[in-house]
Amino acid sequence: MTVRVMSAMMGALLLVFAQLHAQTDPLPSWNDGPARKAIVDFVQATTTQGGPSFVPPEARIATFDQDGTLWVEHPMYTQVVYCLERVHVLAEQDPKLKDVEPFRTVLSGNREAMAKLTMPDLEKILAATLTGMSVDRFNTEVKKWLTAAKDPRWKRPYTELTYVPMQELLKYLRTSGYKTYIVTGGGQDFVRVYAEQVYGIPPEQVVGTAGGTKYGYDKARKPFLIKEPKLLLNDNNAGKPEGIHLMIGRRPYAAFGNSTGDRQMLEYTKAGDGTRLAMLVLHDDGQREYAYGPAAGLPATRVGAFTQSLYDEAKKNGWTVISMKKDWKRIFAFE
Amino acid sequence: MTVRVMSAMMGALLLVFAQLHAQTDPLPSWNDGPARKAIVDFVQATTTQGGPSFVPPEARIATFDQDGTLWVEHPMYTQVVYCLERVHVLAEQDPKLKDVEPFRTVLSGNREAMAKLTMPDLEKILAATLTGMSVDRFNTEVKKWLTAAKDPRWKRPYTELTYVPMQELLKYLRTSGYKTYIVTGGGQDFVRVYAEQVYGIPPEQVVGTAGGTKYGYDKARKPFLIKEPKLLLNDNNAGKPEGIHLMIGRRPYAAFGNSTGDRQMLEYTKAGDGTRLAMLVLHDDGQREYAYGPAAGLPATRVGAFTQSLYDEAKKNGWTVISMKKDWKRIFAFE
Repeated sequence: MTVRVMSAMMGALLLVFAQLHAQTDPLPSWNDGPARKAIVDFVQATTTQGGPSFVPPEARIATFDQDGTLWVEHPMYTQVVYCLERVHVLAEQDPKLKDVEPFRTVLSGNREAMAKLTMPDLEKILAATLTGMSVDRFNTEVKKWLTAAKDPRWKRPYTELTYVPMQELLKYLRTSGYKTYIVTGGGQDFVRVYAEQVYGIPPEQVVGTAGGTKYGYDKARKPFLIKEPKLLLNDNNAGKPEGIHLMIGRRPYAAFGNSTGDRQMLEYTKAGDGTRLAMLVLHDDGQREYAYGPAAGLPATRVGAFTQSLYDEAKKNGWTVISMKKDWKRIFAFE
Repeated sequence: MTVRVMSAMMGALLLVFAQLHAQTDPLPSWNDGPARKAIVDFVQATTTQGGPSFVPPEARIATFDQDGTLWVEHPMYTQVVYCLERVHVLAEQDPKLKDVEPFRTVLSGNREAMAKLTMPDLEKILAATLTGMSVDRFNTEVKKWLTAAKDPRWKRPYTELTYVPMQELLKYLRTSGYKTYIVTGGGQDFVRVYAEQVYGIPPEQVVGTAGGTKYGYDKARKPFLIKEPKLLLNDNNAGKPEGIHLMIGRRPYAAFGNSTGDRQMLEYTKAGDGTRLAMLVLHDDGQREYAYGPAAGLPATRVGAFTQSLYDEAKKNGWTVISMKKDWKRIFAFE
C-alpha cells in the first residue's frame, strides 16, 4: 500500500468519524431555545469552510468568565473563602495577628462585622494570604485546601460546583477548534491550580487578576519565584479586554460572562469583524442554584451584578442571555 | 466495517506514518556534535512513554529568546531599527519634533551622535514610536514596515534573517509535542505581528516586554485599546522567569538563549525536576553571520553580551553551547 493510498484512506476514515461525532448531541444539558440556538448557529457559521463567516482555526479564541459563569459564586467567591480560612492558619503561625485589624475581625467569625470590611481591609487580607510565599508553596497550599474544603450548601468540594451545561459548551467549542480561555476577575495563580483538572483548561489559558513575582535564590543558589503584593493586572471591567490583549494578543470570537465586570469583554468581542458570540448567564433559578440581581427581578447582591443596565445593553447589542432556569436541563454533575 | 475495526486500522496507519516520519532527519542543518546530540537525547528522554524522564504532553513547554537566538540581532535589534525609522515618519507628521531632543539627533542621521544616546533618550523614542496609538493601528504599521524594510548587509527583509537550524529545532520540538514560546526582551506586541508567519508561533505564545493598554470608545461607541507608555513587564534577565510565570504559569522543560539577558530563564528552567535542556547560541561565525562577545574571544558589543561569566556558568551547570560555526551546516534559508 503506498503512502498516497494510505493518506486517502485515512482521510475517508476521519470523515466517517467526524460524521459519527456530529450525530451525537454536544449539548445534552441544554433545552431547545434561543441560547442553545445561538451557540449552535455560531459554531456552524464560524467553522463552515468556504462560508462567509468562516474563522481559520488559529483565530478561534473563546473566553469565559469563571465566578458565576462556569461555577457558583454565591454567596461568596471561592477564593475569598480560601483567603478568609487562610487567616486562621496564619494566626496559628503568628499569634500577634489576633490583635491586628482586619485580621481580628476575620478571626472573630462575626459575619456582620466581616460584611462591613472595607476594600483596603480586603486588600490587606489578600496580600497576607496570597503573597509573600514562593509560587510552588502557594500552589501546594491551594491544592491541599481544595481537597478538604466543602461548600456549606451542597457539602461538596467547590470544584464540583461547576455548571454541566457550561462544561459541555467548553468541550463543544474545543471540538470545533476553539481554544478556550478563562478570563477571570479572580486570582490568575489561584484559578490555574485547578483549571486543567476542573475545566480542561491549561494554566497558560487562564487570564486573571495577577500580581508580580520576584526572582531570587535560596541558600543552595536554587532559583525560585516569590509572589509579591504588587498588582500587575486587575482583570475586571476594562481590565478584561486589556488582559486579553496582554495575555492572548487576539480578539475573542466568543465571550461568556454574567456580570457588569464582563461588560467590556463582551463589547470588545462583539466589536470585531464577522460573526461573534456574546452571552450572559442569568442567575434566575433560586431552587436549583441561586436567583439574584435586578435583571432577575431580585435585589442586587455584593457579587454577580447583572444589573438592569447590563440587561439593556445585552438586548441592544444582540448579546444572548442564558436563563439558568429555562435553558439548562441540569446544573450540576452530582444531581 | 465497524467503528472498532476502523479504529484499529487508523491506529495501525498512524503508527506507520509515525515510523516514516521518524526515519526523516528532523535536524538536517545541524552537524553531528554535542549540541545536536543534546537536543536529540532530550527529546527522546522526555517523550519515551514509561521512561524515567517522560514528560506528559501538556507539560511540554519550550521557550526561545528571539534576538540573536532565532534571528540576527547584530549590529542593531530589528525593533530598534523600526523605532528609529518611525521617528522620520513622525517628524513628517509633526515638524516640531525636528527641534526636540532626542528626536533631532535621530533625524540628523549622525551615527556617532546616535550611539551616544542615553537610556532615557531611548525610552523617549520607544514611547513616541510604540505607544499612543490603537493596537490595530500599531499592527498595521509594523506589518507595512516589515514588508518594505531590508537589512543593509543581506539586502533582504528582516523576516528572512532567521536561522534555519533553529527553525528546524522549533518544528522538531513541536512534532514531539512541545508547545514552543518566544520569550523576548523585545516588545511583545512587535514580535506578535510576525511570529506566526515567521516561526509558526501564534501571538498568544509570544512573551515579551509589555506595556499597558487602555480600553476606550470612539465616537461611534466602538471600543478599542490604546497602547500606553506604561511598562508592565521588562522581559529581560530576572524578568524572563517572572514573565514566564505571568504568561505561561509553568516552568519550561527546555530554554534557548544567547546572552546574559537569558541567564535567569536558563537557570529557572534547569532548576526544575527531571530532565531539562538549556542551550546558548554562540555567535562565533564572522563569515556567515557575525562573531562577537568575550566568549568568542572577541570584544563585547552593545548587544548579545555572551560574557565569559555566562560561559563559565553554562559549563558549570551543564548548559550546552551551540557554536554557529561548528554546529550549523547552514544558517539562512536564502543561502
